[in-house]
Amino acid sequence: MIRKIAVFTSGGDAPGMNAAIRAVTRAAIVNKLKVTGIRRGYQGMIEGDFVALRSSDVSGILQLGGTMLQTARSDEFRTAAGREQAYQQLKKAEIDAVVVIGGDGSFTGALVMSQEYNIPFIGIPATIDNDMYGTDYTIGYETALNSVVEAVDKIRDTARSHGRIFFVEVMGREAGLLALTSGIACGAEVILIPESNEQHIELEKFLHKGYKKKETSGIIMVAEGDEAGGAMKIAEKVRNEHPDLDVRVSILGHIQRGGSPTAKDRVNATRMGVAAIEALLDDQKSMMIGITNEKIVHVPFNKAVKLNHSIDNNLLDIHKLMNR
Amino acid sequence: MIRKIAVFTSGGDAPGMNAAIRAVTRAAIVNKLKVTGIRRGYQGMIEGDFVALRSSDVSGILQLGGTMLQTARSDEFRTAAGREQAYQQLKKAEIDAVVVIGGDGSFTGALVMSQEYNIPFIGIPATIDNDMYGTDYTIGYETALNSVVEAVDKIRDTARSHGRIFFVEVMGREAGLLALTSGIACGAEVILIPESNEQHIELEKFLHKGYKKKETSGIIMVAEGDEAGGAMKIAEKVRNEHPDLDVRVSILGHIQRGGSPTAKDRVNATRMGVAAIEALLDDQKSMMIGITNEKIVHVPFNKAVKLNHSIDNNLLDIHKLMNR
Amino acid sequence: MIRKIAVFTSGGDAPGMNAAIRAVTRAAIVNKLKVTGIRRGYQGMIEGDFVALRSSDVSGILQLGGTMLQTARSDEFRTAAGREQAYQQLKKAEIDAVVVIGGDGSFTGALVMSQEYNIPFIGIPATIDNDMYGTDYTIGYETALNSVVEAVDKIRDTARSHGRIFFVEVMGREAGLLALTSGIACGAEVILIPESNEQHIELEKFLHKGYKKKETSGIIMVAEGDEAGGAMKIAEKVRNEHPDLDVRVSILGHIQRGGSPTAKDRVNATRMGVAAIEALLDDQKSMMIGITNEKIVHVPFNKAVKLNHSIDNNLLDIHKLMNR
Amino acid sequence: MIRKIAVFTSGGDAPGMNAAIRAVTRAAIVNKLKVTGIRRGYQGMIEGDFVALRSSDVSGILQLGGTMLQTARSDEFRTAAGREQAYQQLKKAEIDAVVVIGGDGSFTGALVMSQEYNIPFIGIPATIDNDMYGTDYTIGYETALNSVVEAVDKIRDTARSHGRIFFVEVMGREAGLLALTSGIACGAEVILIPESNEQHIELEKFLHKGYKKKETSGIIMVAEGDEAGGAMKIAEKVRNEHPDLDVRVSILGHIQRGGSPTAKDRVNATRMGVAAIEALLDDQKSMMIGITNEKIVHVPFNKAVKLNHSIDNNLLDIHKLMNR
Repeated sequence: MIRKIAVFTSGGDAPGMNAAIRAVTRAAIVNKLKVTGIRRGYQGMIEGDFVALRSSDVSGILQLGGTMLQTARSDEFRTAAGREQAYQQLKKAEIDAVVVIGGDGSFTGALVMSQEYNIPFIGIPATIDNDMYGTDYTIGYETALNSVVEAVDKIRDTARSHGRIFFVEVMGREAGLLALTSGIACGAEVILIPESNEQHIELEKFLHKGYKKKETSGIIMVAEGDEAGGAMKIAEKVRNEHPDLDVRVSILGHIQRGGSPTAKDRVNATRMGVAAIEALLDDQKSMMIGITNEKIVHVPFNKAVKLNHSIDNNLLDIHKLMNR
Repeated sequence: MIRKIAVFTSGGDAPGMNAAIRAVTRAAIVNKLKVTGIRRGYQGMIEGDFVALRSSDVSGILQLGGTMLQTARSDEFRTAAGREQAYQQLKKAEIDAVVVIGGDGSFTGALVMSQEYNIPFIGIPATIDNDMYGTDYTIGYETALNSVVEAVDKIRDTARSHGRIFFVEVMGREAGLLALTSGIACGAEVILIPESNEQHIELEKFLHKGYKKKETSGIIMVAEGDEAGGAMKIAEKVRNEHPDLDVRVSILGHIQRGGSPTAKDRVNATRMGVAAIEALLDDQKSMMIGITNEKIVHVPFNKAVKLNHSIDNNLLDIHKLMNR
Repeated sequence: MIRKIAVFTSGGDAPGMNAAIRAVTRAAIVNKLKVTGIRRGYQGMIEGDFVALRSSDVSGILQLGGTMLQTARSDEFRTAAGREQAYQQLKKAEIDAVVVIGGDGSFTGALVMSQEYNIPFIGIPATIDNDMYGTDYTIGYETALNSVVEAVDKIRDTARSHGRIFFVEVMGREAGLLALTSGIACGAEVILIPESNEQHIELEKFLHKGYKKKETSGIIMVAEGDEAGGAMKIAEKVRNEHPDLDVRVSILGHIQRGGSPTAKDRVNATRMGVAAIEALLDDQKSMMIGITNEKIVHVPFNKAVKLNHSIDNNLLDIHKLMNR
Repeated sequence: MIRKIAVFTSGGDAPGMNAAIRAVTRAAIVNKLKVTGIRRGYQGMIEGDFVALRSSDVSGILQLGGTMLQTARSDEFRTAAGREQAYQQLKKAEIDAVVVIGGDGSFTGALVMSQEYNIPFIGIPATIDNDMYGTDYTIGYETALNSVVEAVDKIRDTARSHGRIFFVEVMGREAGLLALTSGIACGAEVILIPESNEQHIELEKFLHKGYKKKETSGIIMVAEGDEAGGAMKIAEKVRNEHPDLDVRVSILGHIQRGGSPTAKDRVNATRMGVAAIEALLDDQKSMMIGITNEKIVHVPFNKAVKLNHSIDNNLLDIHKLMNR
């Protein structure tokens, strides 16, 4: 029987993690469970960096970006010795089950440890890339998307004023969803993503025909992981081939991670936090809570960690249609 | 065969209407259709207040709130004579089909006129209430939701500083979805909506037990249409019954309508605009374009105009769980 | 010699109060002073609701709206007995001097108490009305101004979409500065403020000539304290006299108070917090720190509490010029 | 006698330029002057890229970032032949006087041309660097400052979550004002600016003593022009010397340029636009309009173009005090 749970955040931070911590804590307390927060992810687990969480400790964090429990990488946790020590810390603190808020790396770690030490883990997906298998939604994506859109709207102001072409790089090493969606939302002329080559042809078309120096501006969205290299490299190439064009680069970087979460990220993080506690009470383990078609779903870690990089081709078509 | 279409906005304005106008216009042009914008809704249709729309005319409107074509009420259109005149104007302008962007009143008008004059109408739902039957999503809801959340976050700052209780009234005469969702997103202590009576009990509980004057603040979300009356009336009652409490009212009003649309409202408005043109080319009529489970769906006007006021009871449960 | 100071916030909350608390605390600590925070204004002083403040206690509050020390009204402090008790609490806590962050009422209280009990008070002006004598600037005004502008930009979207006239009421019971400045910033057609009658003539001109129903919208800014009554009352009168016009009212209310402070409010609050500690170390008392022509100034409480309601007539002229 | 004026924007775009264009246009029209807009700066002047401006043409631009008249570089204008052609275009269009909105380069050009061709120019300073001599204020600085603060607040969320140190590069090739002010507003631990060497010592102190890995984060603001090189180069050096630290770089870039102007930028741009027309009617020329101590001032171009890079040392002291 579960009497005490731990909750922690792991991997890259994402807006809405605090909302999930709050929901996990409050749902647990209502169900008579005690709650421990683990600071700094798996590394904090190994070091026993624990803090008791009462309902009032998670008051006023719903709207804050980042994670109050911090997050960190841990090379030590990749070793059997590290996990052994982590387990001893959990045992010493009398923790019966764990909720991990993070991405695929975090869930892989949870799966390994759960198999080695028979302690149940439930996962809540939080990553601004929204690339987990089995869920339509991961915490933070929506906020990151709107942060990108707000930034690109500003860049468009200056692009238009100068008739310039901007290559704007957004996060997504292996996934182009953020670039594609924000690109459509901002009316980007071209969107370069790892999932599609075709857009490089669109870029050439735009540079040769679409762009008219005195009249138009250009926003070219670039996913970090586009195979032609990041925005810097692509812009360099374009500058060499079209020395007459006024080409600039903007790498949005970490402003995509922070900020107060959007309504959706707060509500869904709350829903998933509650569902995580329910799953533990239902005797589940090694399971990621997801949301698909607006409904809570349960996905085994082993499935969820197979990243999903498929792109809705309709979105690509719609983008082309808007820029023909 | 359709050679020329008209597009217009009708009813209350909603952020993202411009994105839909842009998408309709560009998708039509790519498909060799000519496009006419009708200004000021059905009234403009009657008066022949038309403007030709080229691709460049809808450039740079994607991120703007409101509607470039304006919108208006029309009592005249409710008469047969008014609709007759509207039809003559469309005929004179050689318009073969119409895309109407609006809510249930707008679609009812379209249905009547379409039956009387055999001119196909396709609808795109745009209303911040998100209460149309047959679609998960209507243009503007998402932006309004985030505007409410932003405003309530500010009100929370001042509520907390004074230990005050605020009754915050949001739009939704017959639908509590906006109040419920924003309430969860803002950590509202109580949420009063027309779909549920139970929350008035929660309010009493909160006022008697939950609220501790020196330590806590209170946000009570109130949907316009709560049967106990709006926020003013409820606050008055509470003030009479609890004269010691520091009670304030904030009616968010029209700031919920405007503003630059969120990413989702821009992308979905774009998708629905494209789908509307496709529907016309597919020989459809009297059909609303919707989005359900992230997919485009087609809903006959006659079904769509039956408003949907059901609330996800899970959301109510989650709210209670967070505030027990 | 001063060894320990207290700091508190009083009166209506204003964005930037936290930045001032942080600056007072840190500047005091660097100067080897101990710091006590008094919670809930003068009422907390009477009740001895004190909290020790270290440098780390004020970390991460710079960007938060509201006040971490809360604020409250105190009828008790208006009595000699209340102030006696407040003094005993300060004495018991070994507090040698006090920094009060608030408005004219707060400074009047400080002046009375300082004269009765010979304990030095230094004031930092924080009020969104910006109506203190002897300083160009009060904490919170700048943030409130930008909150108003953001809200009115949204209202303009919907006003323009419908060709409507909006009466927008902003704070300022006796001072029209916020209405005047935000009105110019938003391109308001008419601005009704307590300092000038002339604008009612402008309103009539606008309603009769300036406004053209199908083409234009109207934003009429109204300061709470306009002698013709608030926005509701004026709009009612206009509706009676011009029944054909589509007139709406929006009362911005408490969303003007909260929110993360602007850069200027954070920087000036920091400057004034440091200057308050310097003033105490310089053996000053009963003095308000102000900023005039971007320089720190010192104004005796007795002068500062005479409210300043003068309006820059140039701003009124400029407004008229933009709308002729 | 002046009957027709031209207005244009030149150099880098800045938020508030549109507000200035609107004010110049409307103030001119009220004074019975005709107004021509020159598109794309001096290059557009040479090419005769002119557009007539009526009052309604500048309606609805007050709140938009960028410049509706666009801006461009012009190598041609640096030649006598280019200026000769520009003058012929002005003469052909019967333009009697010109208002130029831009920075020091733009005013230098205006001074040269005015001397060669006896056509009066009045300047309005618009540059986000706020480094013009003779004015406290230039259009766009305030908005850029708040954009930086908003971005750094987001970066702080992620920095804190990971205990990371971020080097954040902001604009200001030769001026550190933006870095210094935003640094204080965001509670930056260290601020590296071209005007002061001392801060590199502060950086070393912070890295050796102030920063505690598990507890704290660090924001190091870097002005583009810091002599140790940009943020990339400094971060590289720090990484080499402190390989154990988790160091990241964020270059804010062009998001600092765009966006809807703040209230102050809108109001001051309006005031300066009106003052520019007044100056022309007062028979002035080769004069920049400035604002000092909140009053309009007039500064000869020849003085204004001597850039002002002095920093308020009090601000540096205050920053140190907050981080000791």
